[in-house]
Amino acid sequence: MASTVQLGISKTAGKPIRCRAAVARKAGEPLVIEEVIVAPPKSHEVRLKIICTSLCHTDITLWKLKVRNFYRSISPLELTVVESVGEDVDELKEGDSVVPIVLPDCMDCVGSNSKKSNLCSKFPFQISPLLHRDDTRRFTNAEGETLHHYLYISSFSEYTVVDVVNVTKIDPEIPPNRACLSSCGVSTGVGAAWKTANVEPGSTVVIFSLGSVGLAVAEGARLCGATRIIGVGRNSDKLEIGKQFGVTEFVNSKSCGDKPVSPVIIEMTNGGADYCFECVGLATLVQEAFACCRKGWGKTIVLGLDKPDAQLNLSSFEVLQSQKTLTGSFFGGLKPKSDVPILVKRYLDKELELDKFVTHEVNFEDIYKAFDLLIQGKSLHCVIWMDK
Amino acid sequence: MASTVQLGISKTAGKPIRCRAAVARKAGEPLVIEEVIVAPPKSHEVRLKIICTSLCHTDITLWKLKVRNFYRSISPLELTVVESVGEDVDELKEGDSVVPIVLPDCMDCVGSNSKKSNLCSKFPFQISPLLHRDDTRRFTNAEGETLHHYLYISSFSEYTVVDVVNVTKIDPEIPPNRACLSSCGVSTGVGAAWKTANVEPGSTVVIFSLGSVGLAVAEGARLCGATRIIGVGRNSDKLEIGKQFGVTEFVNSKSCGDKPVSPVIIEMTNGGADYCFECVGLATLVQEAFACCRKGWGKTIVLGLDKPDAQLNLSSFEVLQSQKTLTGSFFGGLKPKSDVPILVKRYLDKELELDKFVTHEVNFEDIYKAFDLLIQGKSLHCVIWMDK
Repeated sequence: MASTVQLGISKTAGKPIRCRAAVARKAGEPLVIEEVIVAPPKSHEVRLKIICTSLCHTDITLWKLKVRNFYRSISPLELTVVESVGEDVDELKEGDSVVPIVLPDCMDCVGSNSKKSNLCSKFPFQISPLLHRDDTRRFTNAEGETLHHYLYISSFSEYTVVDVVNVTKIDPEIPPNRACLSSCGVSTGVGAAWKTANVEPGSTVVIFSLGSVGLAVAEGARLCGATRIIGVGRNSDKLEIGKQFGVTEFVNSKSCGDKPVSPVIIEMTNGGADYCFECVGLATLVQEAFACCRKGWGKTIVLGLDKPDAQLNLSSFEVLQSQKTLTGSFFGGLKPKSDVPILVKRYLDKELELDKFVTHEVNFEDIYKAFDLLIQGKSLHCVIWMDK
Repeated sequence: MASTVQLGISKTAGKPIRCRAAVARKAGEPLVIEEVIVAPPKSHEVRLKIICTSLCHTDITLWKLKVRNFYRSISPLELTVVESVGEDVDELKEGDSVVPIVLPDCMDCVGSNSKKSNLCSKFPFQISPLLHRDDTRRFTNAEGETLHHYLYISSFSEYTVVDVVNVTKIDPEIPPNRACLSSCGVSTGVGAAWKTANVEPGSTVVIFSLGSVGLAVAEGARLCGATRIIGVGRNSDKLEIGKQFGVTEFVNSKSCGDKPVSPVIIEMTNGGADYCFECVGLATLVQEAFACCRKGWGKTIVLGLDKPDAQLNLSSFEVLQSQKTLTGSFFGGLKPKSDVPILVKRYLDKELELDKFVTHEVNFEDIYKAFDLLIQGKSLHCVIWMDK
């Protein structure tokens, strides 16, 4: 894979590249494939050739948000190959197989160096900034218009420019249509079970919603040796899908009517679950997850992104006397540059099963299908091949 | 100490004992010392001779609550000696030095056997039940009136009957006026730093309110090797007292006016504290403590008892993206029967400094002074000697 791309390196390095990108001109409007001009990488940047990409529900959420009105190169999921590198880039070279990851990891700050955190303190993650380190952009079009970046990555383009803090080198043995899952939703779910919760063998796990992230939590919990993995949702068909990912039981919240699901879970688990994961993004469900946890040591892990002003109401008294724990898992608590290569190795070692997450594959021209499939709940992950 | 008491065992075992107890006839009214009759222990119970006792702020709070209207033998803090044992008691014998502890520990259930919890599942702690395992009481008076127990322990009596799940055997080498601190507030604070938070050497710790529990957290954090221990409160005199317990800095929240203290703490600590402890019992302060924690790994530990309906409002989004942790610490996360003897050993090994927590000592007749001193904020712990 790398050698094919390396042929072209010397021809384009240092020059602008004209290529195709999928551009969102307005929030929620279909992406349009346009010609864009991708500037060469500046200091601490690399230009990447995207091979495969995909998208997560977060991308759908942000796509619909009326924050920016044009250029959204949506989704951080991809396998790419380094096309060229800018100045002051020591860790990557042309031809390296990499995945760009939205979470920065400078490997040189108190956050990046801590064993307890995956949040870089030098380059704190933000949803809104669409600029590079020097406050400029790398995308323009034929009309001279400057286009926004998206989540540091901008991967719906044949070429993109990314800061080195957002690029992880990986084993080129992993196929591109699997590697692209390691940089967002699947890693988030697997990491939440493995790194954030540190699920112990024999544990009981409850997962609120068996979407792609929830199923990735199940996969992570399965790898950690959880004995019972209980899905909660509104569609009992999910149990059959979930079984492939280690889910052992399913509670249909609709069957509880207006009542909360927690008494059902507490009875099923004889006191509550060891770990509850909220993968929907509703503060009220986080409360419900907290209620489902076992007193004494139950951990509730928030993965779902609710609105910034959504309030989570807990009883302070209950937090004290139950000694339950509440925490969040952003990118699964994974350190992009050290933990993602471990997940790739576990895939190559046939432990982490990525194949079952890929339900569809489309060509770049058909990117709208990837959106439709995800919005309609028909796909877990749809891989988008840029070259086809 | 034990030998003195053992002399009397054979005389009283199996018979009711007439002795003095401090009785609260109405919520918040001064305790009155009365003669009571203490029945012999039944199955799974021991009758204890109280040597020293003390009280915590929780006792003041519960004393004022209009839940029960008579007999409150307030405070679980004490050193006692086993006077006699009931049937089915294998782990204790007459003459053993023990501390009764409010938190049950049956050593035979999923909670008690778990390394992750100090909450007994077989005998879950409750604030209200004032009865023994068989739903009866052991205290009566000359008029034949049955008197309530208090928090499983009822230690403001020369003799009391306690279930074995609430009694911990300790090294008799510890003086009684130090041992009595190991069964409640001091252990709660020290344990919160040691067991619940697991404070790491070099850490930065923030403690909301340097009352006796807050100072015990400081003592625990000091023992764990914390480098910075920052007190937050409304009285700067606390810094001088706090220094004896390892406190290194103090932030007077009054100097922040109407503004929150978190921006000050975040600036002082260059991003937030590793651990924040809320020892007041105000849900709003828990929120503030959460805000003071460092993104990525900051832990907020709730020790203060707020009203059961007090709501803690957090942003679900913030929990997710900050990856901070919120948890509670009940009895410092300590397992009564295994961890309290360790604290006693650390005292005897001159590591844990209990002496500085005892600011006053009074005779049983002067028990009202112990209440007054605590209510007026003049004492940390006032030891009450039952025999003097």
